[in-house]
Amino acid sequence: MAIQTTGLTNHDQSCHLRPQLIESIIVAVAEGNKSEFMRLIDPLHEADIADLLEQINPEQRNRLIELWGGDFGIDVLSELEESLRKEVIDRITPEQFADTVSDLEADDIVDIVEDLDREQQSIILSGLERSDRAVIRMSLSLPENSAGRLMQRRFVSVPEYWNVGQTIDALRSRDDLPDDFHHVILVTPRMSPTGQVALGRIMASARDRRLNDLLERDFRVIPITQDQKDVAYIFNQYHMISAPVVDETNRLVGVITIDDAMSMLEEEAHEDILRLAGVGDESLTHRVFTITRQRLPWLLINLGTAILASLVIAQFADTIEALVALAVLMPIVASMGGNAGTQSLTVAVRSLATRDLTSANLWRIIRREGLVGLLNGVIFALIIGGIGILWFGDLALGIILASAMIITMIAAGLSGIAIPIGLERVRIDPAIASSVFVTTVTDVVGFFAFLGIATVFLL
Amino acid sequence: MAIQTTGLTNHDQSCHLRPQLIESIIVAVAEGNKSEFMRLIDPLHEADIADLLEQINPEQRNRLIELWGGDFGIDVLSELEESLRKEVIDRITPEQFADTVSDLEADDIVDIVEDLDREQQSIILSGLERSDRAVIRMSLSLPENSAGRLMQRRFVSVPEYWNVGQTIDALRSRDDLPDDFHHVILVTPRMSPTGQVALGRIMASARDRRLNDLLERDFRVIPITQDQKDVAYIFNQYHMISAPVVDETNRLVGVITIDDAMSMLEEEAHEDILRLAGVGDESLTHRVFTITRQRLPWLLINLGTAILASLVIAQFADTIEALVALAVLMPIVASMGGNAGTQSLTVAVRSLATRDLTSANLWRIIRREGLVGLLNGVIFALIIGGIGILWFGDLALGIILASAMIITMIAAGLSGIAIPIGLERVRIDPAIASSVFVTTVTDVVGFFAFLGIATVFLL
Repeated sequence: MAIQTTGLTNHDQSCHLRPQLIESIIVAVAEGNKSEFMRLIDPLHEADIADLLEQINPEQRNRLIELWGGDFGIDVLSELEESLRKEVIDRITPEQFADTVSDLEADDIVDIVEDLDREQQSIILSGLERSDRAVIRMSLSLPENSAGRLMQRRFVSVPEYWNVGQTIDALRSRDDLPDDFHHVILVTPRMSPTGQVALGRIMASARDRRLNDLLERDFRVIPITQDQKDVAYIFNQYHMISAPVVDETNRLVGVITIDDAMSMLEEEAHEDILRLAGVGDESLTHRVFTITRQRLPWLLINLGTAILASLVIAQFADTIEALVALAVLMPIVASMGGNAGTQSLTVAVRSLATRDLTSANLWRIIRREGLVGLLNGVIFALIIGGIGILWFGDLALGIILASAMIITMIAAGLSGIAIPIGLERVRIDPAIASSVFVTTVTDVVGFFAFLGIATVFLL
Repeated sequence: MAIQTTGLTNHDQSCHLRPQLIESIIVAVAEGNKSEFMRLIDPLHEADIADLLEQINPEQRNRLIELWGGDFGIDVLSELEESLRKEVIDRITPEQFADTVSDLEADDIVDIVEDLDREQQSIILSGLERSDRAVIRMSLSLPENSAGRLMQRRFVSVPEYWNVGQTIDALRSRDDLPDDFHHVILVTPRMSPTGQVALGRIMASARDRRLNDLLERDFRVIPITQDQKDVAYIFNQYHMISAPVVDETNRLVGVITIDDAMSMLEEEAHEDILRLAGVGDESLTHRVFTITRQRLPWLLINLGTAILASLVIAQFADTIEALVALAVLMPIVASMGGNAGTQSLTVAVRSLATRDLTSANLWRIIRREGLVGLLNGVIFALIIGGIGILWFGDLALGIILASAMIITMIAAGLSGIAIPIGLERVRIDPAIASSVFVTTVTDVVGFFAFLGIATVFLL
């Protein structure tokens, strides 16, 4: 990896792989021109190479990996998305792994290995020294999504009574320092962390200064079994750069750094967005059949709720036959309800995710959503009631539309907040399931209110 | 702020403000018991205090700030959400600011000040020394959302020919070091950054080692005018901890650290989620009227598209009158199209945001969405066609439903990808506008296909 004196050399204004560069690499791969290929790929960061592999088509990808051969940079693997990782690993020889895998940090290896099948796992692990292998196996025995899987095993700890000079001297004599570390962790003789000192403070202090006087103001340790989402939350909330991880006996076993927390945080928000739309773990590299299969369940559920709504409509077939304008106007009520419900549920889902919605403000927020629904309901009742009267010249129809709109909007607001909260209480991810329930409520209430009121008044 | 030896002392399992603690604080505030209030609030991190202020109701908030009085921790302000910040600043006396604002880093002050009105700005700035004030005013003159507003002005730079010993000695003699710094930046005599060295590497190296031999492998500088979203992307993509910021003449003017980039990244994803749902910059602390006003425009647009769909239905009023089953079934087609479109557009919007969708894979992804639409269309055509036949005992109706379903699903897939891309091309945020257009397409196509085919075949 070459040193880049300016960050944007290989990037367009948006700091990404330039399309022309991708084009040139594809050409070099197609021509089997290895020296040209190596010249183009060499200055690229492994994250950009991973993006490249994700963006080209499967045939180009296979040819590229073949051409790259033994020089394949294993650090690209930890940047690749999961589904592609398996594919790429299948095309790399076990020898390539054996040579290079030991260059990676333990957390990166765990990240690569955890989603592979047993056979692929052993291929990678066989490239490691016995002791490293034991460390990885230990990590893999921890619960998925636990802090232990996110942590680095290498860290810098010193006795709590040390001073600056002792620390610097000790660091200079060590040859197993982590690639990146930001704090020196103070520990008791039993390896319990008692505080940490930022490297900047150590460097800025005289040699005889005690580390205990330089402690970081705010110190938090992370239990090894803590959920990764909580870890991301803590890092973001308290602006942390790195934090020690402890096992059940409060023994220091590793360190989590902010870059891992940052990836987690982004992943979580990304997941929420996709789940809200009923998409799941989808990626651009998935094939048509995979995508279709992944989107199917949600569409199937939606079909169920749509049929439910149709059943409601079917009850009022006579009314519709008597006044076909009802069929023309009823989707408006349902659509408005669906949208208002989506607004309300999205705010609720995000507030739960960012932990802004708590028992302290729960009832206030529920009341607020009800009021917003009422207010918007009245506003749109006036608008749509007016339109109904003007369009069909039928005062009664306008009043029916207006009343149905108010009822539906209130139902939308309340179900939009109550359903995510209810799901969270029974430990179902509100992001994944709220939409179905809320739109079912708004559809059913919308059609029922509109057609029901119409039946009572018109027939 | 007290040192916390374990991070979870004042937090429940999810590491947040405990509800009981909030309860106790509310009681102390209600009773005007200042000593009890200070005892409870003292161990809390400013981010948690900000959360507390956000979660309690406006009356409690006002009383709390009054009780806190002159001891109000100004660092809470930079953690507060914007809308509350203005409210709180209005209740703090200028003297309180003058005493405390100079404790903050320049980037935090800019963050607090940038959204305030002129009067509030001058109150805060008056608490600063003349030179600091000039720095803040300079930052405020930079474009909003630019890297310059995100950066700290204090950084550590040394001549590029220095060695470890010189650097440590220089750091020890300085008393204006930043609170947090992770790299020493090497600069030319004209203050152009040429590389940076991680503090850990400096500490681990002998005094006579040249900094130039310890350079971080991957070095990127950030132009002062770069968009903050790009900055967040770069930090996440390249796992950076801190990076120098340069002005137009390539002079080092500041440093951005990962915690700011992390907040940006989360903010961006959060915005995308809310925008996709047509919510905008909404927060739990907003009042009913604010929320209603903010959600109204989107609902208004949706009303327009719903009326458009109704106009399509109105064209087929005679057909519906002849066969009321069409009115019963038509929402199914539209609803399935809407959902499939939402799936497709959400993936597209996210892929654009994460820069995974580029000109290299554009056509492949468009084709893929078309195929997924076709495939899902065929599957659901079979299901819904069967249901139509069984329910209404009408073969023709089943076939009509099935055909409309295929057409609508393909339209959903294609519009779901094409519309976000088109919006991005004309520089409209695809997150904010895609939904409206896509559901308009699916509604109109759905109703038109279903009722149109029915009219041709049945009448």
